Amino acid sequence: MASESQPLKGKAKVVDIHTHMYPPEYVKVLESRNIIPLVRKFPGAPDPRLVLLDAEVPLLESAQQGTSVLPGRPLTRHFSSLYQKIHFMDTHHIDISVVSLANPWLDFLPSDQAFPSAKSINASFSSMCAVHPGRLYFFAALPLTAPTPQLLDCISSISSLPYCRGVILGTSGLGSGLDDPAILPIFSALADADLPIFLHPHYGLPNSVFGPRSAAGEYGHVLPLALGFPMETTIAVARMFLAGVFDKVPNLRIILAHSGGTLPFLAGRIESCIMHDGHLVNGMKKGARRTVWEVLSTQVYLDAVVYGEVGLKAAVEASGGSERLMFGTDHPFFPPVGGEEGEEDGEWESVGLNVKAVVKVIGEGEEYEGVMGGNAFSVLRLEGE
Amino acid sequence: MASESQPLKGKAKVVDIHTHMYPPEYVKVLESRNIIPLVRKFPGAPDPRLVLLDAEVPLLESAQQGTSVLPGRPLTRHFSSLYQKIHFMDTHHIDISVVSLANPWLDFLPSDQAFPSAKSINASFSSMCAVHPGRLYFFAALPLTAPTPQLLDCISSISSLPYCRGVILGTSGLGSGLDDPAILPIFSALADADLPIFLHPHYGLPNSVFGPRSAAGEYGHVLPLALGFPMETTIAVARMFLAGVFDKVPNLRIILAHSGGTLPFLAGRIESCIMHDGHLVNGMKKGARRTVWEVLSTQVYLDAVVYGEVGLKAAVEASGGSERLMFGTDHPFFPPVGGEEGEEDGEWESVGLNVKAVVKVIGEGEEYEGVMGGNAFSVLRLEGE
Repeated sequence: MASESQPLKGKAKVVDIHTHMYPPEYVKVLESRNIIPLVRKFPGAPDPRLVLLDAEVPLLESAQQGTSVLPGRPLTRHFSSLYQKIHFMDTHHIDISVVSLANPWLDFLPSDQAFPSAKSINASFSSMCAVHPGRLYFFAALPLTAPTPQLLDCISSISSLPYCRGVILGTSGLGSGLDDPAILPIFSALADADLPIFLHPHYGLPNSVFGPRSAAGEYGHVLPLALGFPMETTIAVARMFLAGVFDKVPNLRIILAHSGGTLPFLAGRIESCIMHDGHLVNGMKKGARRTVWEVLSTQVYLDAVVYGEVGLKAAVEASGGSERLMFGTDHPFFPPVGGEEGEEDGEWESVGLNVKAVVKVIGEGEEYEGVMGGNAFSVLRLEGE
Repeated sequence: MASESQPLKGKAKVVDIHTHMYPPEYVKVLESRNIIPLVRKFPGAPDPRLVLLDAEVPLLESAQQGTSVLPGRPLTRHFSSLYQKIHFMDTHHIDISVVSLANPWLDFLPSDQAFPSAKSINASFSSMCAVHPGRLYFFAALPLTAPTPQLLDCISSISSLPYCRGVILGTSGLGSGLDDPAILPIFSALADADLPIFLHPHYGLPNSVFGPRSAAGEYGHVLPLALGFPMETTIAVARMFLAGVFDKVPNLRIILAHSGGTLPFLAGRIESCIMHDGHLVNGMKKGARRTVWEVLSTQVYLDAVVYGEVGLKAAVEASGGSERLMFGTDHPFFPPVGGEEGEEDGEWESVGLNVKAVVKVIGEGEEYEGVMGGNAFSVLRLEGE
C-alpha cells in the first residue's frame, strides 16, 4: 500500500475488490474486431491500443488517417499478465484481489458466442486464482446476450467455482437496462446463489452532452470517465430502485463501483423528487415503500474508489457507516503517466489517492482495517485470517 | 421557516437565493407556443399545465389524444403572483428573496425577440422588487440568442438596476455550451460589472439514458429532475473548468444550483482523471493549473438546495467551509402534493427538508445564520441589517 498505510502492514489483510483483467483469449477477441471495443496496433507505438469508449471513436478515425495522437490507452502487460497483477499487489501491499473482467465484458458478443465465451473466461479466472490460492478470487462474467436458460445455467455453474465470489455486470442488462422486468429471474438466481453483483459502468453518456471541445479531444477522456461513468451507474441503480427491483428481490446484494457513482450525493434529491411527484402520489410515497437510504444501508455496498475525502465521507454516511465500504484500485486503469521508464512497476498515485482518502475519513483503527479488507472478508466470504 | 428554524426568528435575516417567478408577460409567450416550453389548458383541469422538459413531451402527446394523465405541472398562482411569493416568504419566515426567471429563461426565443423580451422581463422584476423594497432582489435574465453587442448592452443596463444582484443562466450559453470561447466576453462583462452568475439546469440529459419505462411515465419526472438536472450542471461547470474559463476570467463568480449538481462528490474523480490522462500530460497537470478544489473555494458558491444532510455536508466540505453556501427553496417548484385544499398555502415539505439539512449539518450558531442569510448578504451585497 502507499506510504500512508504503512502502519497497517502486518496487522490485517488488505483486499482490493475493484481490479480488472483481460485474459489473453479476451484480448484475442478484441484484436479481431473492427469496431469498438477493439485492440489495434499502430506503427511506432510500443503497445497496441485498447479502444473501448464511444468517446474514443473520433480519435480512432483520425489515427487511421495518420495523425499522431493515438486513441484509447496502451494495452500494457498490466491488462493480461497474472505475474503483473501479483507484482502490482505486492508493490501496494495488497494481500488479496477480487479480480473481474473489465468493461465491456461480454455485452457486445453475438448470442451464440456469449455462453461459450463466458465459460472459457470464467475458467481462465478460476485457473488464475488456483495458481495463487488465498490471494485471488474473482467476480465472474455473465453471457448477457445468450438465451435466458443458458444464462441461468451459467449462474448455476459459476456458483460452484471455488474462487468465484459474485458477478460483474454492466448497466445494459439484457439490452434494456436493469429495470427491465425480464432480468428479474437473473437477479433472483444470483441472489439465491449468494452471488453479489459488482455493478460497473461502461457506456457513460451520449457524447453530445460533453460538447464539441470534448469530442475534439481537447479534454482527453476526462468528461466521459470522470462524469459519464459515475452518472451511468447512478442512473442504472436509480432505475432499479424506481422499478422496485430491491423489493422484488430482497436478498439481492449489489456493490456499486466508484462509491456509487453519485448516488450518495443525490439520494436526498431522489427522495425529494419522488415525494413531490404528482404522478407518483399514490404509488411510491413514503411509508408505502423503502427509501433510497434504506436500500443503501441494506442491499447496497460501495467500493472506496472515489479519489477524495469529500466523496468518501459522503459514501460512508449514505451507507449508514463504514462497514459497507470496500477498498479498490481500479487497476490496471489510471496508471502513472509521467513517462519515466519502469514507472508503472512502482507505486501508483491513483492507488495512493484512494488510500489517503480512507486514512483521512476513517482514521487508522478497526474501521480502517474494515474498509481496507475486513469488510470484503465478510461481504464476499473470503477465507483465511 | 419550517419548525426546525424557530430559534432563528428575530435573530438574523433569512434569505432565499433560489426562488423563481414567471412574470405574466412570460406566461403569455408560453401560452402562444405549440412546442415546449409551453403553457396549455386541458378540459377539466383547474390550472393550465406548464410543460417545460423534453421528458414531458410523450405525456403531452398522449394528453392531446385524450388520456387522463396530464403532462408537466399545474401553473398555479405561485408561478406569477407577487402576492403569493410574499405569502410564501411570510409562511416560511423568509425575510428576503432573490428571485429569478425560471427555466428555460429566454433560451428559446428568436434572435430578434430576445433583447426586447429581456428588457421587459428585467423591468418587470425591477418593478416587483420596488413594491417591496428590502424584501426582494433579483437575478436578471439575459438575451442569449441576441447578437453579442445587444447582450453586452443588456449587461451594462442591468448593472444599474437598483435591485439586480446577478444573472441567471442556463447551460447552453450562446448555443454551444459554457466552454465556448465566444462566450468569454460575456463572462468578462458580467465579472467586471460584479454580477455573479446563478447557473441553473434545464436541459437535463437525453431521454434515452433514462430508459423506456421512464419515457412511458412510470417514474413520473423523477429521473430527469433528480438526476438529469444535477448532472447537466456538473457537466457544464466541468466543461468551463477544463476550458480554463476560471483562469481566463479570474473575477468571474458563479453560484451553482442544487449544491453544485454533483460537483462536490465528483471533484476528486475529476482531479484524478485529469492527473491520469495521457492526452493532458503536458497541459493540465497539477502545478501548472488550479485544481477543481481551488476553484470551488475561490470562484464558486453553492446553494443549499440538496434535500439531505449527506449532500449538504459534502457541499460544505468541497467549498472549504460553510461561508460559500446559501439557503434556497426552489419555489414554486416541488409544492406539496397531498391534494388537500389550501395545502400549498401552508408550509412546504420541500423547504423543510433543506432547512433540516442545514440544522443537522451546520448546527444553529453563527454559521447557521450565515448559510440561512448572512452569506447571501455579503456575496450579493444585500442591504439592511
